[in-house]
Amino acid sequence: MCGFDPLHRHQIETRSESPGPTGFDVKFCSHCGQPVSLRTLEGDHLPRFVCDGCGVVHYQNPKLIVGCVPEHEGRILLCRRAIEPRLGYWTIPAGFMENGETTQEGARRESMEEALADVEIGSLLAVVHVLHADQVHVMFRARLPEPKFGVGAESLEVVLYDEADVPWQDIAFRSVHFALRRYFEDRRRGVEQHHFTAIDFRKPPSA
Amino acid sequence: MCGFDPLHRHQIETRSESPGPTGFDVKFCSHCGQPVSLRTLEGDHLPRFVCDGCGVVHYQNPKLIVGCVPEHEGRILLCRRAIEPRLGYWTIPAGFMENGETTQEGARRESMEEALADVEIGSLLAVVHVLHADQVHVMFRARLPEPKFGVGAESLEVVLYDEADVPWQDIAFRSVHFALRRYFEDRRRGVEQHHFTAIDFRKPPSA
Repeated sequence: MCGFDPLHRHQIETRSESPGPTGFDVKFCSHCGQPVSLRTLEGDHLPRFVCDGCGVVHYQNPKLIVGCVPEHEGRILLCRRAIEPRLGYWTIPAGFMENGETTQEGARRESMEEALADVEIGSLLAVVHVLHADQVHVMFRARLPEPKFGVGAESLEVVLYDEADVPWQDIAFRSVHFALRRYFEDRRRGVEQHHFTAIDFRKPPSA
Repeated sequence: MCGFDPLHRHQIETRSESPGPTGFDVKFCSHCGQPVSLRTLEGDHLPRFVCDGCGVVHYQNPKLIVGCVPEHEGRILLCRRAIEPRLGYWTIPAGFMENGETTQEGARRESMEEALADVEIGSLLAVVHVLHADQVHVMFRARLPEPKFGVGAESLEVVLYDEADVPWQDIAFRSVHFALRRYFEDRRRGVEQHHFTAIDFRKPPSA
């Protein structure tokens, strides 16, 4: 996934596989530089970071990750990660959505960046709420018209896999594992549905 | 919609109906309080706000708005807005998604807050990329089992409307207009599809 900064990386590394609080601490106002306090404003239902100087409220909201499962003649394109988190593990092309693009444009951009693959984005495959990381992962089906791809800066390898050869034990993220399972199930049934789920490592596993 | 702060409000008011740049200016680092500069880092493709002191990168990403179309015995629930932007205009219950909730949970929460309506969230209806506002609006179908609702703090009126009576000329947001049109079209056809679109007021209208 592209666009990780040290904070994002921290978020994924420490939160995607372990429980923890949601949201990042804001210490200073990004508008005036004064310290902020965590306060619940009148009429609101949650504490927010509010600037002690100018009064601006710094809301924190979930971030969107966009990606796709590119298919070429029955095989799907996976990337082995060259960066943390989950360096060395396999994933689909995906990353933080940017301002000014659609989810589909973001998914296509990530395929180009991570796998040098010019894909055609198809139907919606999965929406995964990654609650401990304050992220929503939106994944699409995609078509890779030509078997042209390469190893992007954030990948170690990029490979077209038959379903039988997918390295299920080495998939980097649970959201991607979920999306790939649904992808192949739907393909066998000849349908293209979309699938919602939530992953929440804040909660202890039930017995 | 709930959870607007002065910045959000500014964003909607000035951007949802007129062209403008995307993203907010970050002037100071929220982690150390030092000034930031807009710089394109090596290996990145867009300029980012980077702290001159501690080097933290302050990415800016689209925000999620979640909402639903609650239906009770064929009529749908609309709220007349008591707050800016678009005060006095009609909308569905919707607002900024919070950390720690799913899109469905957020849509249900907004129905409770804005219309005192306890709804059951159904299928995905629409995903609207509001490009000039750096927002993604995700809207669901919903069922209001009992005709129990009221006027939330951010509403002037809450009304169950027959399709024939929907105040189309006074719908607050284009994304909501799009979702409601698709809602009724699908209902007439007896299907529940999901619909993607993009709204972009950064671009001048084509001739």
